[in-house]
Amino acid sequence: MALILGIDPGSRTTGFGIINMVGQTATYVTSGCIRCGEGEMPDRLLRIYECIDELIETWTPQQFAIERAFMGKNADSAIKLGQARGVAMVVAARHGLPIHEYAPRAIKQAVTGAGGAEKEQIQHMMQVLLKLPGRPQPDAADALAVALCHGYSLLNRVVMAGIKRPERKRLSQVPPTKKI
Amino acid sequence: MALILGIDPGSRTTGFGIINMVGQTATYVTSGCIRCGEGEMPDRLLRIYECIDELIETWTPQQFAIERAFMGKNADSAIKLGQARGVAMVVAARHGLPIHEYAPRAIKQAVTGAGGAEKEQIQHMMQVLLKLPGRPQPDAADALAVALCHGYSLLNRVVMAGIKRPERKRLSQVPPTKKI
Repeated sequence: MALILGIDPGSRTTGFGIINMVGQTATYVTSGCIRCGEGEMPDRLLRIYECIDELIETWTPQQFAIERAFMGKNADSAIKLGQARGVAMVVAARHGLPIHEYAPRAIKQAVTGAGGAEKEQIQHMMQVLLKLPGRPQPDAADALAVALCHGYSLLNRVVMAGIKRPERKRLSQVPPTKKI
Repeated sequence: MALILGIDPGSRTTGFGIINMVGQTATYVTSGCIRCGEGEMPDRLLRIYECIDELIETWTPQQFAIERAFMGKNADSAIKLGQARGVAMVVAARHGLPIHEYAPRAIKQAVTGAGGAEKEQIQHMMQVLLKLPGRPQPDAADALAVALCHGYSLLNRVVMAGIKRPERKRLSQVPPTKKI
């Protein structure tokens, strides 16, 4: 069993989603988004910090997954996204959680089967895979998707560890050739 | 009197500098740099968080100033810089410090008189202005420079507040013309 907190960071809205992986089954725990408001940047970052801190305190996840994304156009928006990501990661690190990063394409591939999937597809697949009564909000859906992507990745590692590798035939040791 | 902590953020090295503004005089308190190592990003961010947290706990500055810089080439380095900045700002915000951001040109202009000054000039001017026995390390010098830039800005505000505006001669009130 692993409780995974997924985060889709952003300086205006940061999505969060928690899923529980039991065996091969992922179940929905909670999700939502942190509205950072239109205030000064330090206040927004503080809000991200405090909300994620509270999420970790409340739900005590064992794993933390975050999108390694940048879809923006310019350096300024990259800096802003970086700030939100940095804050999200540092809260998790302060709680001693292992942090896993996934590229957007890997996340989309894992949850929809297509690396170039649209936002709506992610929302739809989260509703289907996690048996939700309705479509989650886009940022919450992205956060659930990164959590689920990490859940599948954990599963793969377990499966891989369970498979015995075929033994390789050893080549008879050839003594190193000596220079004459 | 104002104790100002200046930060020059970076995901590999984060410079810090503390100065004390008493009246119009800035005195050196401490400076240095946080070496974040070559490890995983969460570990580096955690190191930035913990070091700045300790600096604030130890020196209890009343003001926090940070460079609003991006000199990099690509989105990836902007994200990394953003992460370090976000962490630095969130520590200060958690301590309730007022956070001030200055553009690199404004900092250079304030401490060297030239917006396009080279790194060596900043180091040199920090040594001169703060009466240091030697040249500070480049990142520490940049951090001291942003602290000093904020110190000068505080001073300007005090000076401006102290100057009485000349009273304007009031124009005799002309009654609004009425439409006939």
